Amino acid sequence: MAEIDGKRLLAGLHKLRSFGASGSGVVRQTFSDPDMAARRWLCDELTLAGLVASIDGVGNVVGRSQNPGPALIIGSHSDTQPNGGWLDGAMGVMYAIEIARALREDPATAHLAVDAVAWSDEEGTYTTFLGSNSFVGDLTDSMLQDANAEGETVAEAIERVGLTGTPRQRLDLGRHVAYLEPHIEQGPHLEDAGLRVGVVTSIVGIRSMRVTFVGEQNHAGSTPMARRKDAGAALFAYAVTLRERLAEVAGPVSVWNIGNARLLPGGESIIPGRAEMVIQFRDPSERVLDAMEAAVVAVATAMNDDGPVEVTVVPQRQPVAPADMDPELRGHLAAAAEQRVPAEWVDMPSAAVHDAMVISHHLPCAMLFIPSIGGVSHDFSEDSTELDIVTGCQVVADASFSILNEQRLSIG
Amino acid sequence: MAEIDGKRLLAGLHKLRSFGASGSGVVRQTFSDPDMAARRWLCDELTLAGLVASIDGVGNVVGRSQNPGPALIIGSHSDTQPNGGWLDGAMGVMYAIEIARALREDPATAHLAVDAVAWSDEEGTYTTFLGSNSFVGDLTDSMLQDANAEGETVAEAIERVGLTGTPRQRLDLGRHVAYLEPHIEQGPHLEDAGLRVGVVTSIVGIRSMRVTFVGEQNHAGSTPMARRKDAGAALFAYAVTLRERLAEVAGPVSVWNIGNARLLPGGESIIPGRAEMVIQFRDPSERVLDAMEAAVVAVATAMNDDGPVEVTVVPQRQPVAPADMDPELRGHLAAAAEQRVPAEWVDMPSAAVHDAMVISHHLPCAMLFIPSIGGVSHDFSEDSTELDIVTGCQVVADASFSILNEQRLSIG
Repeated sequence: MAEIDGKRLLAGLHKLRSFGASGSGVVRQTFSDPDMAARRWLCDELTLAGLVASIDGVGNVVGRSQNPGPALIIGSHSDTQPNGGWLDGAMGVMYAIEIARALREDPATAHLAVDAVAWSDEEGTYTTFLGSNSFVGDLTDSMLQDANAEGETVAEAIERVGLTGTPRQRLDLGRHVAYLEPHIEQGPHLEDAGLRVGVVTSIVGIRSMRVTFVGEQNHAGSTPMARRKDAGAALFAYAVTLRERLAEVAGPVSVWNIGNARLLPGGESIIPGRAEMVIQFRDPSERVLDAMEAAVVAVATAMNDDGPVEVTVVPQRQPVAPADMDPELRGHLAAAAEQRVPAEWVDMPSAAVHDAMVISHHLPCAMLFIPSIGGVSHDFSEDSTELDIVTGCQVVADASFSILNEQRLSIG
Repeated sequence: MAEIDGKRLLAGLHKLRSFGASGSGVVRQTFSDPDMAARRWLCDELTLAGLVASIDGVGNVVGRSQNPGPALIIGSHSDTQPNGGWLDGAMGVMYAIEIARALREDPATAHLAVDAVAWSDEEGTYTTFLGSNSFVGDLTDSMLQDANAEGETVAEAIERVGLTGTPRQRLDLGRHVAYLEPHIEQGPHLEDAGLRVGVVTSIVGIRSMRVTFVGEQNHAGSTPMARRKDAGAALFAYAVTLRERLAEVAGPVSVWNIGNARLLPGGESIIPGRAEMVIQFRDPSERVLDAMEAAVVAVATAMNDDGPVEVTVVPQRQPVAPADMDPELRGHLAAAAEQRVPAEWVDMPSAAVHDAMVISHHLPCAMLFIPSIGGVSHDFSEDSTELDIVTGCQVVADASFSILNEQRLSIG
């Protein structure tokens, strides 16, 4: 069983952090100068690890092992949120490089094939999971026309960074047998429970619905209370009632959020004639998501029956289906975790979405989480302990060996 | 008794409507291009009516009769809400011009002095009753630093529209004996009761408080419900509870409104770390206003005791004290109404505030209301019948004559 080099892993992570560093955080959005510089540096590191590295036509960094398959893909994304943390996707990318290197350095594992990847635009600066969608063949023309906040499309960005015409790397089912994505938890469950490793069972599905309230805009002084059709008051009542209903139908890990709401026209002396909010909810179970969606609609229906404000619910964006992780791969991660951190690991769903969600429809996938300090992510203060970072990498390395070993035996 | 020219009045109103017209409504906020264009046109109209017209240093349009006093001031404001109606303050301004003109055209009344005004920023685009406060000498330096939604201060706007250094017109107690403000009701009472004219007894007091909720911004996927400090959810709960408490302490004509609320930072996937709303409430009684204010504070105190979100209540703007209209002036309006629309008028409070409230602390004031169709105001659909518009103007003209006539008799 190859031992990873923790110091080398941490040194690499700190070097990657320097691309777009801002205080303790990182600003490295897809196709920005720091992002492209980081991708070029990752190619150098992959080459040092003995892989054949390139940046593909959508910005994915792919390092291909020179060994024949069966091959494991390990990785995550190297881009960040506008005010991102240093670990987020970066950690999974550096795990992949360290594991490829460690396996190659150990004569007992040097024949195994690990391909390492850094996906492009996981954070949705331009579009939804650009790199992994391209890799599995799900990239659509319309995604190439999606634009960032400044209005630059994916196609324009690819042209700007000089990748037009560069081939897109694709999943090779004759070679690739599984995808492993190591990641920070981005939530507080592991830390709260005093655990070191989470083996992801599934990635939650997400739905969001826009709820619109249409009443009657009027003067807030001269309109008697009993005659009002106050869209704002209806929104407040809806939100409070919905919270109660969702709590009734929610599963143990369900979450929901009203992150945005507005009253129109928004004057202090004007009864809102219109109000809008978006309710987003997540759960690993389609059945629970269905029940939550039914609650969103039912509260609106009840309010429409009572009047006087008209409530409309429409789905917002494409719903994201829950994605189950592969049970056999989970078994390998669990066995490795039990070996390295006995009784300090747990099966858990992922409340955030990841590239593994996209890839799981084409290739068996698994994910490993390490604790996030304070549960904080997508923030400059995002961090994990060095011990947890190194331990997580070793667990993934162990599982990689056992997965590939089993594959070779079964081919045998 | 001078007869007003209803067709001329309506033609003028429709011309004024064209400045900032948007469908059936008007967008003519203070110091906007349409607002300043309207004020220049009003100067021309006042000049045609034989008055000496100018735009003063805060944007008030004042047309001074060339006759000596005692003089009556008649008028209202020509600015509108962001999505305003065409009559609101505009009608009172055009009544003033028509009455000045009608009195001058009748040899029996040509010696009487009516000064016509169009106040600046009654709607509070920048500050509170800018024009009337300036006219009575209550304009403070801090009001000049109040800003519109784009952050432009009154002083900056005055500079932008070229009024810096222009003198401010002031109330002249040696000349002015009373202020009459004709206005649409902006509520449904007259229409509901099948009446044509309302004689205002008093203007309600208004208070408003800003309520701020501080929680903890976090990822809406990976933060468990039980760990959240959701400022948005706290705002919704506060608003619903406050509504119940206010209903308990309110008087028969009390009203309240939450016209504006926002969640920050406003992302669909981000738990709001901060939320803000303004609650405004009105009543003719200071005692009832005190009880409502106590309820606003009490609900916040109870939420702070429960946690986890911190709620802060601060008074917003200057509280507006209830203002009584002058009984003698009301008598003149009532007599004129009984003459023109016998048994179809009523004494009533004004649930909306008006410049007459500001002026009433310095000069006897009275107001006349005409019905608003459907009780709607501050909306593009605001309207009144032509018959009511013309009748209201005649009643104010009759009362103006009788007031000025009585004044001259008493002076001897």
